[in-house]
Order: sequence, then C-alpha cells, then structure tokens
Amino acid sequence: MRKILLSIAVFGLMSVSAAAQADPGDFIEPIMPPQSINLGMVDLGKKLYFDPRLSKSGFISCNSCHNLSMGGTDNLPTSIGDKWNQGPINAPTVLNSSLNLAQFWDGRAADLKAQAGGPIANPGEMGFTHTLAIGVLESIPAYVREFKQVFGKDKIDIDQVTLAIAEFEKTLVTPNSRFDEYLLGKKDALSADEMAGYQLFEESGCVACHNGAAIGGNSFQKMGVVEPYKTKSSADGRVAVTGKDADRFNFKVPTLRNVEMTYPYFHDGAANTLPEAVDTMARVQLGKKFTREENTKIVAFLKTLTGDQPNFTLPILPPSSDTTPRPTPFSK
Amino acid sequence: MRKILLSIAVFGLMSVSAAAQADPGDFIEPIMPPQSINLGMVDLGKKLYFDPRLSKSGFISCNSCHNLSMGGTDNLPTSIGDKWNQGPINAPTVLNSSLNLAQFWDGRAADLKAQAGGPIANPGEMGFTHTLAIGVLESIPAYVREFKQVFGKDKIDIDQVTLAIAEFEKTLVTPNSRFDEYLLGKKDALSADEMAGYQLFEESGCVACHNGAAIGGNSFQKMGVVEPYKTKSSADGRVAVTGKDADRFNFKVPTLRNVEMTYPYFHDGAANTLPEAVDTMARVQLGKKFTREENTKIVAFLKTLTGDQPNFTLPILPPSSDTTPRPTPFSK
Repeated sequence: MRKILLSIAVFGLMSVSAAAQADPGDFIEPIMPPQSINLGMVDLGKKLYFDPRLSKSGFISCNSCHNLSMGGTDNLPTSIGDKWNQGPINAPTVLNSSLNLAQFWDGRAADLKAQAGGPIANPGEMGFTHTLAIGVLESIPAYVREFKQVFGKDKIDIDQVTLAIAEFEKTLVTPNSRFDEYLLGKKDALSADEMAGYQLFEESGCVACHNGAAIGGNSFQKMGVVEPYKTKSSADGRVAVTGKDADRFNFKVPTLRNVEMTYPYFHDGAANTLPEAVDTMARVQLGKKFTREENTKIVAFLKTLTGDQPNFTLPILPPSSDTTPRPTPFSK
Repeated sequence: MRKILLSIAVFGLMSVSAAAQADPGDFIEPIMPPQSINLGMVDLGKKLYFDPRLSKSGFISCNSCHNLSMGGTDNLPTSIGDKWNQGPINAPTVLNSSLNLAQFWDGRAADLKAQAGGPIANPGEMGFTHTLAIGVLESIPAYVREFKQVFGKDKIDIDQVTLAIAEFEKTLVTPNSRFDEYLLGKKDALSADEMAGYQLFEESGCVACHNGAAIGGNSFQKMGVVEPYKTKSSADGRVAVTGKDADRFNFKVPTLRNVEMTYPYFHDGAANTLPEAVDTMARVQLGKKFTREENTKIVAFLKTLTGDQPNFTLPILPPSSDTTPRPTPFSK
C-alpha cells in the first residue's frame, strides 16, 4: 500500500478519497497530438518499422509484434521470435509509448530510440545484429538516398535507424477517445454506466497508478501489492535493471489507453479479458472484490479509452539490390 | 521448343521473327484499373487479408507471405509457415494475380477465391481450419456486423471469407508502369537501353510465354525446355493436378509485372537477382546465351514493368471479444 500512497502523494498530495471528488483533469489528461515532428524522419522510420529485412529471417519486422492494425501489439501472451522462439514477456503496445517514463516492462531502455535497437539484435526476437542490419540498408540505393536526405550524412549507422524508428513511434499517439472528449468538455461523451465505471476507477484507487496522459506508463509498481501475483513467468521486473531487491516484481505500469485492443493483459499475458484483468488487479493490487456489476461498469469505462488508431498509407519498401545480403531464415 | 511455338501460334499465328516487328500491343497489353468492384467487400477482404487470427498461431496473415509492402511477396526463396515450417515453393506475388489463368504454381486453384482458403487450412502455412477460423470471426461483433452488411446473411461462412479476400485481391493490380505509359502512347517513356532490352525480349522469344497484360500468368510451360533445370525443389508442377506425365515440371509462367520487387525468382526461389534469372531463362528455355550487355538491357526493360503499388490506409482490425478463442502458437 505504501507504494500506492507514495504514488498518490507524488500526484498532488491528495488522499484517495479526495481524488474521487477532484476534477478528473487532475489525474488523467487528454492525449495531445504530437509536436515538433520531423516528417522526413517519420516517413523513413515508418518504412524501417515495417521492414522485415532488419531481421535475420527477413520475416519479422517491428510491426510483427507491435502490429499497428491490432492496437500496437500482437495480441499474444508472449511473442513469437526468430525460429518461432517463445518470448519471455508480453509485448507492450507501441501506441502512446512516447509517453512512458522508460521502455520495456522493466524500464531498461531510457527512451524509444534506446528501445528500438533491442529487438533487432535479440537472438530470440529478430535475431540479427546491428552491423548486418546496416549492411542490408547500405546495399539498398533508395534507403541510402533517403537516409542521406534525412540525416545529411554519407554513411548509415544504427543511431540513425533507431532515431528514425523512434520518430515514427512518436506519431503513434491515439487522441480523441471518448474519454478525452469528456475531459475536454463534452460532458455527455460518456454513458451513465461509463461515468459510474470512471467513478469506481477513481474511488477504488486504480487511478493511483493509472494516471497521467497515458493512464499508466509513468511509474514502476509492484505486481502483487496486497496479495502475491501467481504467474508462470520468470520475469523478475525492475530488479534486473537496478539490482535492488526492493525492485523485484516491480514492473512499469502499463498504459490503459486502447486497452480494449491490447489483450491479453499483464506482463505475462495471463489475463485474456478485461473483466478478468480488472478482477485480478482489484484483488492483488487493492485487496478489493468488485461485484459483477461494478466490474462491468469499470470495463465499460475502460472501453472509452480507445482513441484514434494509426491512420496512414501502408509503406512501400524499396527493393533489395543485387548486392543486398539475403535473409537466412533456416540457417543457424 | 514446340510449346513455345504453340504458344506463339495461340497468340496470333505469328512466328518469332514476325513478333519482333509487330506492334508491342499485340503481345503485351497495359494493365487496366479494376472494374465492377464491390467496395464493401473490398474493405472487409482487406481486413481479413491482414488478420493473423485466421491462423492457428494468431501470427500469420495473408500479408505475411504476400506482403503488400514488398511487391506482394515475402522475398524469400520459400515461405515461413506455422511453427517456422519451411514451405516447399516460392510464394508467388499476389499483385495482378487476378490476371492469372489459375492460382498457385501448378494452377490447382481455379481462381482467387479458391486459392484464398488453401493457406488458412494448410498445416505448414497458417495451420488452422476453416471451421475454427469462422468460429473466431463469429465471435467478433464488428466482423459479424460487417459480414452481414456485405453479404446480407446472418451466418459467416468460409465462402464469404474467401470471396471477400478475392475481391480485395482484385484491386491489387499495378497500372501505370513506365512500360504501360509507352504502350499507351508515350513513346519517350523508355530510355534507349530499355527499348533495346524490350526488343531483345521480343526477338529472343521471351515474349512467347511472357505476354498478355500480366506478361505471364496465362499459360503453363515446362521449366527447362532446351536444357533440364537443376533444382533442389521437389515440386513436380502441373502433373500434381492433371496426373499427366506430360505436365511434369510444367509450372504457371510467372508474371513479370513488378519483377524488380518480387525476387528471388522461379518456383524454387533459386535466382536471387534479375541478371541471374535472365541468364538462366535464356539458357534452359531458349538455348541462348546473352552477352553481359544484352542481359543488362533486358534487365533495364524489366525494371520498367514496376507499376503503381498498393495505395491504401493500413486497416485497423476489430478487437476480439471475451469469447473469442485465443490463438495457440505453441501448442500442437
């Protein structure tokens, strides 16, 4: 409980009961469209995001596991990587990930740029190396020209690649959810049940961790505050980054934006549905048991958090040249 | 050689030398935009084409192997299927596939609708069953509504699914290549080298099989007419469909539209580059050896066949419901 209270304290020195009466804007802010975007870099980053040639197999791109047709996730408990490797943890959504205080469940990457290089070189994900990926890009004339146009340099390097992908990802915010319409003044944007669900969400303490523009993503919290969370996952959480035992089973609080689309839930992907996720959260984080009716209302509120999904033309990738190294999906 | 001459005969009772002097329109026609398209069905089919929930794993969609960012192919010699299964044959491009006389390399599917159901239920591709796929779709309210809107029926069935996917695929034609501009009257659309390459393509007999609007796709021909084609592939070709020994190693002639993007080449994906593919074709189909200069010119011509690539907004897929059966990527 201490962590939750601390978190509340940070968020305005209010108690949970005060929170319930506060203006919602105090806890949850609407998502704003991205600012200061480099459009040339976005266009390049979009191509790279969809390009499976950044993987050893030529089959897996960023979009394979953070699928922009599916809420920026793969909708699988854990992801499928090179040679059908079963990943250790649920793929978090890329949507609104620019709002996170850090990237990955354990926050081991400081920002999107630092994150983007990880999966490319992870043997269980895209299975490639940065050097080989750069070699592929350098062999494709249209990429060479586009990198030069965007970065003004003669050589492509991994910093340019991850910077471009990160710039594209910064555009993947999802404003204009019905709840944001409500926050911005359209007081009838939510139905009575949805409003009641929002009140429960606030009063019960969910908002202690799920707050800010992303309704999450801005703190690390222990999974299982009141009651231990039982899981088959071996993920240790933030302790893997800090080495501090106090950070064991601490995970980045996931965003609740577009949560209707980002099933299954939790770092182990063990909860298939929103009613199940709400029930488990109430039990292990808050020591509460919602009635079926309360659960339904909270879920109704959560479904108002679905915003504008990515809206762009499918990128067309420049073809490989005769000298481009070919993918090796079936070799070691 | 008999097959080539026969093919020429069918195509206007002209000899190869007459062909060289003929109006190019006699052999190759420009691609026309699709007509009589059902737009509601296209929108639905586009979603289904991108939906990995039609696979057992929840990871593989039509677009995985016929990637519309990459010339409608996966740019791999043979495809990756469920559990990283190595497919037996090169994935043909879906672009302009509506122009093919039949689908698959051996023509075992009469049309796009008949083709679309195959990979879903193939254990080495999407690994699912039609019944399970329909169960998934029936559990997703937004799909239920959209199918009802498009087909006017209360139940979804596999015929509707494959019909919608086929209707979407009919839109995947690629008009407005530079060569089509030439055919339609822009006489300076091609450079001198590209024109010379086109002349060589005609005079050498390539056009005997690669003709029509798709510059291929309209006949089955033996792979290795003059000289046996050496391959590690065990694919038998059209004999698997007809049972006739004369059809052994007969394959559907692939389209040359967008051939710059559809590497690697041949049914076994053994040729990585266009110069290599042209060289091999000349040797085993025509008994010819092009000089390096001739090869370069033919390749330059082939690169004028890249037309307008698919141009549409990335589809957003309706989320699963609480009752949607979940994918099982790691179970048997």
